[in-house]
Amino acid sequence: MGDTSASTWMRRALQLAASGPWPDPNPRVGCVVVAADGTVVGEGFHHGAGTPHAEVEALRAAGEAARGATAYVTLEPCSHSGRTGPCTEALVAAGVARVVFAQSDPNPDAAGGAERLHAAGVQVTGGVLADEAAHLNERWGRTVLLGRPLVTWKLATTLDGRSAAADGTSRWVTGEEARADVHELRATRDAVLVGTGTALVDDPRLTVRMPDGSPAPHQPLRVVMGLRELPEGARVHDGPGCAVRLSTRDPREALDALWLRGVRDVWLEGGPTLAAAFVRGGLVDDVYAYVAPALLGAGRAAVADLGIGTISDARRLRLVDVAVVGQDVRIHAVPVRDDATTDPRLPAQP
Amino acid sequence: MGDTSASTWMRRALQLAASGPWPDPNPRVGCVVVAADGTVVGEGFHHGAGTPHAEVEALRAAGEAARGATAYVTLEPCSHSGRTGPCTEALVAAGVARVVFAQSDPNPDAAGGAERLHAAGVQVTGGVLADEAAHLNERWGRTVLLGRPLVTWKLATTLDGRSAAADGTSRWVTGEEARADVHELRATRDAVLVGTGTALVDDPRLTVRMPDGSPAPHQPLRVVMGLRELPEGARVHDGPGCAVRLSTRDPREALDALWLRGVRDVWLEGGPTLAAAFVRGGLVDDVYAYVAPALLGAGRAAVADLGIGTISDARRLRLVDVAVVGQDVRIHAVPVRDDATTDPRLPAQP
Repeated sequence: MGDTSASTWMRRALQLAASGPWPDPNPRVGCVVVAADGTVVGEGFHHGAGTPHAEVEALRAAGEAARGATAYVTLEPCSHSGRTGPCTEALVAAGVARVVFAQSDPNPDAAGGAERLHAAGVQVTGGVLADEAAHLNERWGRTVLLGRPLVTWKLATTLDGRSAAADGTSRWVTGEEARADVHELRATRDAVLVGTGTALVDDPRLTVRMPDGSPAPHQPLRVVMGLRELPEGARVHDGPGCAVRLSTRDPREALDALWLRGVRDVWLEGGPTLAAAFVRGGLVDDVYAYVAPALLGAGRAAVADLGIGTISDARRLRLVDVAVVGQDVRIHAVPVRDDATTDPRLPAQP
Repeated sequence: MGDTSASTWMRRALQLAASGPWPDPNPRVGCVVVAADGTVVGEGFHHGAGTPHAEVEALRAAGEAARGATAYVTLEPCSHSGRTGPCTEALVAAGVARVVFAQSDPNPDAAGGAERLHAAGVQVTGGVLADEAAHLNERWGRTVLLGRPLVTWKLATTLDGRSAAADGTSRWVTGEEARADVHELRATRDAVLVGTGTALVDDPRLTVRMPDGSPAPHQPLRVVMGLRELPEGARVHDGPGCAVRLSTRDPREALDALWLRGVRDVWLEGGPTLAAAFVRGGLVDDVYAYVAPALLGAGRAAVADLGIGTISDARRLRLVDVAVVGQDVRIHAVPVRDDATTDPRLPAQP
């Protein structure tokens, strides 16, 4: 056999994987089942949490033709029973002779699939186009390793670092295009989080709207955390999509509660106090700063006290991307993690 | 005559002009003297304040051959007596038959050259490649119309708008590349200005250094303004180049004093109080904000109170350019001027 044909089939499996929904708590996976004579007998991809895994879909399509065939899968088949039963057993039961996969499963609860297949007499090859596969599910891979949702903190400031004017007004620091950009990015996360402070002062909807103002098809979960009461008529309770209230001030507690709800990717739009709590806890994975070319000279900063006294203790980030959005500048940066706190298994950040 | 040949000669004159020094209080001007048979008989350009004007240099080269020739000049010949005597008289005395120029002189003290030449019987054509010529001396044109030096304010902040940490330390907010970039831009101005506050706290040299740390060939005038005393040993007094002390807190007074010294382009690195005074006075023409991907959570802002109470009164700027410099972001923006305060003669800003 040629590695060339293996990577050709894997590339097809990656194409299928990319058809899966995103954001989703599960990774995007694709599978191609190829008979000994080189005929494709089944294809499948994962349609999102609660639906069959890619392997199961492809094996169903293949039926009896799976016997003696090779299955190309973008992620190591799982050996655990989740909502769908382990894929390793489905592959063995279908009589598949060989499994070629791309990325090893980083999920400690799901890993071990390769060993299980091998033990069942299936020929196993891993690592084919592994980087491409990991890239496809980069955020999922990180959230699995961290065991908590990823957090993206969004801030909007003037050139002199003000998020609101002296009288508290903040509509709008940035322009229309930047605000539309925020809505687009919100839509790629599965929850939007603010504190009760912001909910009380700004009374935001937190929904994702299209440029024409209509609600977007995917609505992230709207989350308000904190101990203060919200009034009955708070706009965050208005549809579409769901809103949830977390009665805690502790970012880690809030993330744990969201994790249990299947949330993997949080968009944080908190005020300075909440933002500071997340930054202090080392719980911010991405920062999107929208900088407006404007000066205020006074008013609220984007983040409250971080316990930093001197310049050498500044929390340093690494630039990922800088873009001009309308009349504003969008800076995407990620924290520079100390060696001591870096999980060596974490893939390099983009 | 053909316009084509006129613009061909003017393009040559523009090339010559571009050889002139910059920054310089005077505009860069080039001149080509062409005999009736199409032979170039003299060329010249302005070598900087205190040296002969381009026309005079070209006429000297032409000698008797200037008689009956056409002079192509990138700027309307001056009719005033500065340090060098009016060029109009030199052109008339040389017997030039025709003068073609590009940009009309925006300087009210120097304008009227075209009329003077016409009155003396010289054929005059203006406006040939005028935009190119104006572009070459864009900053000079603006400073002449404003009647004061242009001011470029440089600030360096973290992503949350801090220019110094809680304990006052600010070395360094930005990285090495950004600081080298500041030195390169300083070198394109003819003065660097700080307040006594910054001079006392940071004790800066304000010199322009090359990447290897050695002093650059052109050193802007180093200016400290304010009422507080500086110690004898303040490093701003160390060479190379000159330092000057202005005993005023009033930005307009300081600029007037610098104007009289021939300063046309000031690089402002003041602290928050001085920066606020310039911004309040409408005396900032360019802003270079270096934004470091870092968070401090506390510490000094880049600009002090501007008397702005609410978001709709924010001083808006227009983005000119955004660049990644090393690990930092450089944002170049210019104030959006109210229609009421815009001089219609001012060229569109770059």
